[in-house]
Amino acid sequence: MGMTITEKILAAHSGKDHVEPGDLINARLDIALGNDITAPIAIKQFRESGAKKVFDKSRVVLVPDHFVPNKDIQSAMQAQILREFAKEQELTYFYDAGEMGIEHSLLPEKGLVLPGDLVIGADSHTCTYGGLGAFSTGVGSTDLGAAMVTGEVWLKVPESIKFIFKGNLNPWVQGKDLILYTIGQIGVDGALYKAMEFTGPVIDNLGMSERLTMANMAIEAGGKNGIICPDNITKDYVSTRAVRDFKIYQSDDNASYSQVIEYNVSNIEPQVAFPHLPENTRGISEVGEIVIDQSVIGSCTNGRIEDMRSAAAVLKGNKAAKGVRLIIIPSTPKVYRDAMEEGLFEIFMDAGAIISPPTCGPCLGGHMGILAKGERAVATTNRNFVGRMGHPESEVYLSNPAVAAASAILGKIGNPADI
Amino acid sequence: MGMTITEKILAAHSGKDHVEPGDLINARLDIALGNDITAPIAIKQFRESGAKKVFDKSRVVLVPDHFVPNKDIQSAMQAQILREFAKEQELTYFYDAGEMGIEHSLLPEKGLVLPGDLVIGADSHTCTYGGLGAFSTGVGSTDLGAAMVTGEVWLKVPESIKFIFKGNLNPWVQGKDLILYTIGQIGVDGALYKAMEFTGPVIDNLGMSERLTMANMAIEAGGKNGIICPDNITKDYVSTRAVRDFKIYQSDDNASYSQVIEYNVSNIEPQVAFPHLPENTRGISEVGEIVIDQSVIGSCTNGRIEDMRSAAAVLKGNKAAKGVRLIIIPSTPKVYRDAMEEGLFEIFMDAGAIISPPTCGPCLGGHMGILAKGERAVATTNRNFVGRMGHPESEVYLSNPAVAAASAILGKIGNPADI
Repeated sequence: MGMTITEKILAAHSGKDHVEPGDLINARLDIALGNDITAPIAIKQFRESGAKKVFDKSRVVLVPDHFVPNKDIQSAMQAQILREFAKEQELTYFYDAGEMGIEHSLLPEKGLVLPGDLVIGADSHTCTYGGLGAFSTGVGSTDLGAAMVTGEVWLKVPESIKFIFKGNLNPWVQGKDLILYTIGQIGVDGALYKAMEFTGPVIDNLGMSERLTMANMAIEAGGKNGIICPDNITKDYVSTRAVRDFKIYQSDDNASYSQVIEYNVSNIEPQVAFPHLPENTRGISEVGEIVIDQSVIGSCTNGRIEDMRSAAAVLKGNKAAKGVRLIIIPSTPKVYRDAMEEGLFEIFMDAGAIISPPTCGPCLGGHMGILAKGERAVATTNRNFVGRMGHPESEVYLSNPAVAAASAILGKIGNPADI
Repeated sequence: MGMTITEKILAAHSGKDHVEPGDLINARLDIALGNDITAPIAIKQFRESGAKKVFDKSRVVLVPDHFVPNKDIQSAMQAQILREFAKEQELTYFYDAGEMGIEHSLLPEKGLVLPGDLVIGADSHTCTYGGLGAFSTGVGSTDLGAAMVTGEVWLKVPESIKFIFKGNLNPWVQGKDLILYTIGQIGVDGALYKAMEFTGPVIDNLGMSERLTMANMAIEAGGKNGIICPDNITKDYVSTRAVRDFKIYQSDDNASYSQVIEYNVSNIEPQVAFPHLPENTRGISEVGEIVIDQSVIGSCTNGRIEDMRSAAAVLKGNKAAKGVRLIIIPSTPKVYRDAMEEGLFEIFMDAGAIISPPTCGPCLGGHMGILAKGERAVATTNRNFVGRMGHPESEVYLSNPAVAAASAILGKIGNPADI
């Protein structure tokens, strides 16, 4: 029997020739990641273990990104714990001050996560790196603390679901729409503890940014990981940035899947996930009249340069509706700078946007655009749970960057095709 | 007996030919200002008065700037109160969404505050507009609430102190240094309830931005207001932007001052105010070794385009020291855009800076760069009280933008001349 890419990566990292779903393995880590919310707990755990040094200073990566620049004293104290630990442990990769960015955008951009890697992070959206053909998954802070000592993690090999995307993408339909549609079809627990393997001709033609977006939201269907087999697009992306060697894995033709689901994307419109679950998706034509107070373009899901360009294509020559706060958050300093140098900032400012330095910001109700009671936002983020972006009586609608841009202009959720 | 400019403005606004220090007057307001911290209280007061409409919808100005983009639910609710009130009252000047900026930078830039005006604002740094030759002063939120109804305010005519600045400015000495030096000389209560009138050949040659900086910090010496008689520099500044007519007042030669203080600026170095009072000033050569964690360039004191240029002149071709968070906050969308279009953002990013959208931010411990325990910042802001920028055991050192930029590069407080 063959293996899926997920199984092959897990086998290779646990010194086995073959693993099967349900196997418990102890796997070697390529990267262990923490942020300003989770790393302080992991560091405490690390210290309590009695360990003096992390297992590999080039493989423990800390990224303050959730509440930075420090939003309050508490977050300043959290970030300070990371700063001191990074200095003490001489961590090779610690992104502070002007290098701060969103972890899941920074790590691929910097070539720290690579095809074939096994990555854990104390952040649920660590699954992002599956877009590169890595196995990556979110863990708890204490798991991270243990992993920082040992460089290993216990995992149960997940079953895999194969998603096959066929057909032709409609205008303004992006990777974000494919994953929202998928979650809408299978539900927020539709892939519980499973590997979501995205395949098919549509995926083959998808750029790296949209692949990362899809893998990023695997957790929103309950997935253990999302993954896409590496190809030339992957190789092109990593070739100039990889900080170490890596290995390409592919699913075997005779690999076993618990489910195979095929979608014809020709039937898929730009998607909007209604409050308060990512599975509450509707095609843009079925949204109705949803007046908004805020539009947020950014996050680990959709804060890359391709997302900035997509928003700019819609915003160019247009203005946000009066009173709508259009907040654009490039996810890394490089994205910020590239967007500025490409002239996108001028388009954004002409549109009345507020441009934030890189941060997770309002996505998780952190800062930089929190909603008041009764307010509504459309956002390119990944979760629209109750109170996720602020007041328990506020609402978040998830979309791709083009829809978020169009909605800012219209003052209500709308189709970029109508701009 | 002649009158000072302060007395003339107060007389004209209370229908009198002549006023003297100590007189209680009821004065007509040109502008009543509130922000996202103070206006909600004023609006509550307004509602409790039973009034339906503000006295003049073009003279009540609300600016959310302290905790925007909304940093948390509470600040979102505060900003929402302003938004709803501005809409209900059809306020002519309400700066929201992409128009948000720091009140005391926005109002002069937009030509809303003008020479000869009488302005109150529920913010202590309302005294800024004295730089234009207006009488402007900070009031409590309930005073603002009453003023929004009546368009009038009770004031006691202050005594005036005349400051005469003579000599030649040393390199890198700016308006910020003159006012810090002045506060260092007279102390934080040295001008208690007095008008601080800045005069002399040095002031005559000072640009509008530096004049606004000086008036801005009058409150830090306890002053009721700071003021500079309008001249051609003033007229040039306001001529293209004034939204209404205005009147120029000048102090009479035989006006009466409670004190006349003369400084020879040739003896003044760039100044640094040590924790925890603005009066704890030292010349840059006497600062010693003060290692910093953060450098903040912005605020209503020093967030204008001239301040951005001053910082850029020092930062150009240099990088912030490792680990130093250099946070640059243009004070209005126009400053932000001008700085970007002049190429300053590239200099800032090359230096490893974080560029924030316009906000008061960390100045008052709001957000966007709060200090942890034991951390030190140099800042172009106006107050270095205990815990002002974060943890009670953090420290803030006040300086001009060039010194803040040089300090970021050096990793310790230093002289731009040494870069």
